[in-house]
Amino acid sequence: MTTTVPSKTGPLKTVASIRWLAAPTSWSWVEQANARPMEVLIDHAHCERKAAGAAVQMMFRYLCEPGLGEALSPLAREELEHFEQVLALIKGHGRYLEPMASPGYGADLARQIRKGEPQRMLDTFLVAGLIEARSHERMSLLAEHSPDPQLRELYNDLLASEARHFGLYWVLCEQRYPRVLIVERLEVLARAEVKALEGELERPEDVRMHSCGVDITQMS
Amino acid sequence: MTTTVPSKTGPLKTVASIRWLAAPTSWSWVEQANARPMEVLIDHAHCERKAAGAAVQMMFRYLCEPGLGEALSPLAREELEHFEQVLALIKGHGRYLEPMASPGYGADLARQIRKGEPQRMLDTFLVAGLIEARSHERMSLLAEHSPDPQLRELYNDLLASEARHFGLYWVLCEQRYPRVLIVERLEVLARAEVKALEGELERPEDVRMHSCGVDITQMS
Repeated sequence: MTTTVPSKTGPLKTVASIRWLAAPTSWSWVEQANARPMEVLIDHAHCERKAAGAAVQMMFRYLCEPGLGEALSPLAREELEHFEQVLALIKGHGRYLEPMASPGYGADLARQIRKGEPQRMLDTFLVAGLIEARSHERMSLLAEHSPDPQLRELYNDLLASEARHFGLYWVLCEQRYPRVLIVERLEVLARAEVKALEGELERPEDVRMHSCGVDITQMS
Repeated sequence: MTTTVPSKTGPLKTVASIRWLAAPTSWSWVEQANARPMEVLIDHAHCERKAAGAAVQMMFRYLCEPGLGEALSPLAREELEHFEQVLALIKGHGRYLEPMASPGYGADLARQIRKGEPQRMLDTFLVAGLIEARSHERMSLLAEHSPDPQLRELYNDLLASEARHFGLYWVLCEQRYPRVLIVERLEVLARAEVKALEGELERPEDVRMHSCGVDITQMS
């Protein structure tokens, strides 16, 4: 599923996150995000908080699953650390966390998770990995294309550990499921992820880390 | 509410956590815990995990409350770090997290939390602080009285930051409520906390970080 990141002038660079994603973010999303940086930043703080919450929730659900607590706990800590970094920047601009209408993206993806085990655990890891991969891809775009040097620096700072996160979810899958099964399911879910982003048209005025904007002409 | 920690031979030392607690842990709890160290350790890992979960849950509930995210997020990270430390020690002994019947302690205390705001937030902070204070008190006892040097070292390591935690919940209260109101409510909840510990008689064979064992003769 390797493909490239879009730019105004054509593909710019390949990022690791794209291995997960069925279609790249469109340039129009980058333009919207750059036009409303504080909105994206506040949403980003919420995303980090939710990512930490999701990791902790998995620890709770699969309490006694060997190898899980020691993998997910440091991940949750890192998400919380990012939350604090992003919040500090928001406060530096005289703002705070504000209630925000979430795009339906997360809920749409959660609906893809099958109910019974062991499918449920596999899907949970893959959906978490896909959300991380999309966040990473979009942060890479902002790290490169944001007109604000402070934001470029922030996103560059966060990128490396964000990339580790979807890598970690991949490893958690590989430790537990045959690769052929993982790849097959990932392809289904990756398409659902693109569809979830395409579906974010209800509130076209909102710009979010996971609001609408994929280039389906580059669908793999 | 200042009182002292019990010992076989009488009061040994005063610890800061006791300021919160209406009665000290009994010497019989220390003896039970020392007789079943692995059981207490595994329960302790669960407690750290639950404390992190509770902090993250408060962040979710009071999303836009200024000053809360930046206080609770580092606390949750610290709890997760402790969870990892305790888990490493458990694994070092060839064990892992195991499903464990929880004492009703946490649920008993949760029932004390009033429903409407702003009472609910105050009670939530005080209950969280009380649980931290009791954990700190019992960890202090084990840091001093465990026959296992590795456990004494672990508990000593964790103590300082655990003490900061109930201090933090106190500060969160003081930033938002009149002191007289906090103290009055704390006294009620501290008595409920002792009652919750006394109530842990259903499964007298279990030893937990919050299993039965308070010295009500020293009730303040």
